[in-house]
Parts: sequence; C-alpha cells; structure tokens
Amino acid sequence: VDPNLPIGVFDSGVGGLTVLRALRKRLPNESLIYLGDTARVPYGTKSVESITRYATQATDHLVTRGIKLLVIACNTASAVSLEPVRDRFAPLPVIGVVEPGAAAAVAASTHQHHLVLATESTVKRHAYARAIHALAPNAVVDEVPASLLVALAEEGWTDGPIAESIARTYLAPALGRRESKPQNFELRTSNFELDEAPDTIVLGCTHFPLLEHAIRAAVGPTVTIVDSATTTAERVATLLDEQHLRRTASEPPTMTLLATDGAERFARVGARFLGEEIEAGDIEIVDL
Amino acid sequence: VDPNLPIGVFDSGVGGLTVLRALRKRLPNESLIYLGDTARVPYGTKSVESITRYATQATDHLVTRGIKLLVIACNTASAVSLEPVRDRFAPLPVIGVVEPGAAAAVAASTHQHHLVLATESTVKRHAYARAIHALAPNAVVDEVPASLLVALAEEGWTDGPIAESIARTYLAPALGRRESKPQNFELRTSNFELDEAPDTIVLGCTHFPLLEHAIRAAVGPTVTIVDSATTTAERVATLLDEQHLRRTASEPPTMTLLATDGAERFARVGARFLGEEIEAGDIEIVDL
Repeated sequence: VDPNLPIGVFDSGVGGLTVLRALRKRLPNESLIYLGDTARVPYGTKSVESITRYATQATDHLVTRGIKLLVIACNTASAVSLEPVRDRFAPLPVIGVVEPGAAAAVAASTHQHHLVLATESTVKRHAYARAIHALAPNAVVDEVPASLLVALAEEGWTDGPIAESIARTYLAPALGRRESKPQNFELRTSNFELDEAPDTIVLGCTHFPLLEHAIRAAVGPTVTIVDSATTTAERVATLLDEQHLRRTASEPPTMTLLATDGAERFARVGARFLGEEIEAGDIEIVDL
Repeated sequence: VDPNLPIGVFDSGVGGLTVLRALRKRLPNESLIYLGDTARVPYGTKSVESITRYATQATDHLVTRGIKLLVIACNTASAVSLEPVRDRFAPLPVIGVVEPGAAAAVAASTHQHHLVLATESTVKRHAYARAIHALAPNAVVDEVPASLLVALAEEGWTDGPIAESIARTYLAPALGRRESKPQNFELRTSNFELDEAPDTIVLGCTHFPLLEHAIRAAVGPTVTIVDSATTTAERVATLLDEQHLRRTASEPPTMTLLATDGAERFARVGARFLGEEIEAGDIEIVDL
C-alpha cells in the first residue's frame, strides 16, 4: 500500500466532517478524501441491508480512487456495516467511530457508569452499550436518544439558552432526576445497577461535538465528555504508525470533498462541521 | 368513478397524518388510505426528478388499490410534482397542500403581507410565495425556513418554553425586529414593500400544526395562523361536492395506513400527528 494515498472518510451526510476535522487536526500531514452520501441521508431509518449496500458502494468508489485506510464516520453505518465492509475490502484497514468512542469512555470512567447521547437509530441498536460492555462487562450504560440535537447542529444554533435547555432536558433525567424521564428516555441496558450518576458522556453522533459547550453547561464540570471524532482520529494515528502508513511525500497534503447530492447545502451546513469555509464549487458530486 | 372508493393521501413520511386528521374531521364519512414513503423521507433534499418519480410510484400504488381522489400532503411533492402527477393520472382529481394554504392566506389577510413558515426546501423553491403571488400579485411574502420545528414536532416537544423560544427565535425578526435577522432568514420575495408586519402566518409544512400553540404564544393574538391541512380538507370537501363524489355507502368508513419502512416508528411518531394511537401491526409495509 502506498503511504502517500489519502485516508478515506465515509459518512451518510455532513456530520462526519467533525471526524474529518479531528483527523486534520491530529494528522495535519495526511491527505484526506471525504464522501458524504447526502442523497440518501439519513441512514438511521433505513434497513440493515440498505445501509450495508450504501456503505459498500461508497467504499468501492473511494477504493477505486485510491485510499490507504477507511474511516466510517457515520455512527449508524459503523454499528451496522463495519464487519461486512472489512470482510469485503480486506486487507484495507477500516475503522468505525463506535469502538474508539466506547474505548475512550471506558478508559476515562472511574466507576463505569456511562451516558450515551446518540440518534434514535444508534440507541435502538445499542451500538455503544454493546461496545462498552465488550470492554467493561459490568458497566452501566444509559442511552439517551437526542434527535433534536442533530437539527440544532445543522441549523447552527449550537450555543445559547435554547441549545442549553434542550441539552438539559435530555440529560437531567439521566443525571439524577430519574423520576422525570422524558417519554423517549430509554431504559438502562445493563442489569447491573449503581447509585452513582454517570461520570462520562459519550457523544455518540457525529453532530454532537458542535454542541459540546451547551452539553457542558447542562452537565457541569465534573463529567468527562467523550467525543468519538477525536478518539477515532487518535485510533487512526495509532494504526498508521503500527502499519508504517504515515504519509511521506513532501508536497502539501490534499483534501477532497465528495457528495452524492446538494453541493450548495453541503457547503453551507458542512462549514460548521468542518470548522472552516467550504466553496460549493469545490465539492464534487458523484453517483454511486 | 365509484364514490365509495377511498380518498388517497400521499406523503413523504408521517407529517401528512395532520392532513389525514383534518380530512377525517371535515369528512367523517369518507374512507381514507394513507401512504407515507418513510423509506425515502425527507424529500426536500432530493432532486426534482427523484421526487416526481417517487410521487408517481406512490400514486400508481394507490390508484391500483382504487382511490377516487388523491391528496399530495407533502409540501415538497406538492410544489414539485403536482402537475406531472395530474397529467399522468388524469382524470383523477389531485389536490396539493400549497395552493389551498396560499388561497386561505390571501382570503384571511387585510393588507396582503404574509409570513410563510416552511422547511428549507419549500422556502428555497418559493412554493408559497409563487402561489400567493398568483392570487395577489402585490402581496409581500416573507419566507422563513424553520427546520428545527420539524424535529420538535417529531420529538413531541410541541408545548412549553423550549418550543415557544424556538418559535419566537424564528418569528421575531419577521414580526418587526428586522435588524436582528437570523443568518438563515430569507430575503423577501416581493419588491413591493409595506411597513406593516405580516397579518397571516402560513404553516407551510405538515409538521407545524402540532406547534400551533407555541407559534401562537410567540406571535400574539392578532395574527391569523393559516393551517394548510385544514384548508386542504376544505378544498377536498368542495371538490367532492362539485364532482358528486361524496361517499354514499352506509357501512362505517375505513382508514388504511401504508408505509414504505419502519412500522414501529411510524406508529409511535405518527400517533402525535394523527391525534390518536396507531398500532404498529395495523400499518402495512409496501414496496414501491
């Protein structure tokens, strides 16, 4: 494998640009190619078969262009399609976002009581709970579906009283006031009960790092907030080192943005996730 | 045409159940068949060609089952695909939600200054502005994309301080404090400027009737809130009378619910839109 090939990043839309941002920050000398399947977003409501088919098509496209490693930035696709994509494209290294996030939460926790904020579909699949239990079988994992946070992040209303009260509404019941559970609050997924409140909050959706300030305001200073984007970038860095795949070329690295629909919206909304301006003209629309 | 056939209602998801609810209220003796294309929701980000293809497939399915009239409850599909569907399925009467909403707004307004709350895609297509201008060429139409209201309605957080402050944030700039436009506030679509604030608010998305109380709290008592669902049901009633298509059978009318994916979520979220419980087992999943 040519270490000067880019790292591929696949997501169902623009949310994975938070992972791209974390990769650029952690690995500034790596070339990156991002593919957002904006024509078919959201994946959460699609069947397992469809999601794996989409993930395979996207990976095929990126592999044809040439990549040395693939990151599946979408939580839903990571939960559902990581193994099928790994099997099909072996020996291409494929990294999802769920396992690194779960591992970081387990490492950061003192009493293994975790709160996972995620989309409805990720909660329904218990993706993080299963990944955390694989590492810490007695962990208590509260999973809170927080769909409104996705819309808040896409709208750009990431700070201020509205964002904070929405974060508080989702989190307060899990952080002590259990009697006032909102109706969509999921039951604990572990039988092992502890009295302590969660000491980690896992941001189990690519959109949520944008809301970290509002979430911090809602939970106070003592809880550790684990961001899957950052921990996934760390995992990628480790893997590149282990496999001697660090880029060696001296020219500046490149960043390529691909989407399956809507360059204008991708540029406008995506800029908030990437943390810098995106020109719609720089986005290449591809047909999978 | 057999007047005892049901009225067909097509939507991209569960939102159109507010239109189904308005039809049941206005026409309690009519049988109804609803098809929500939950596998491909949302339509707003899809291309015009795709939306018309989906609308045609859905109509085909409903026509095969037998309907006497079709309501396109989805604002995006109404804006994009009403004419192609009318042409293809003539002489089937086909009614969209945009024209009835626009007509009701024009009829209710004293100085023809309207504020349309809609999704980003409906605003981008200026669907309501064009329909209002067709009836009142000098009307001033402010169009406000309000994506978060969709997520609020789906989450069921339709009342209380969070819903009201979100409604106020979207509406305040358009209702007088223009200097503090949020970044996604669209420019007026008419050159004809009036000093008066809007005297109608058009709920230009099937989800928004659920938020009428919060919107009312944000705008005060003097503005007329026009709900496309109710006005569309009124239009259907008129058309049934004109074409002598009122149901005559004496047995109780039926209601059939079809979706293209996710019966469990359809039942849970849809109940809020229909205003009554839905059993997941009563939803038939169809493949278009």
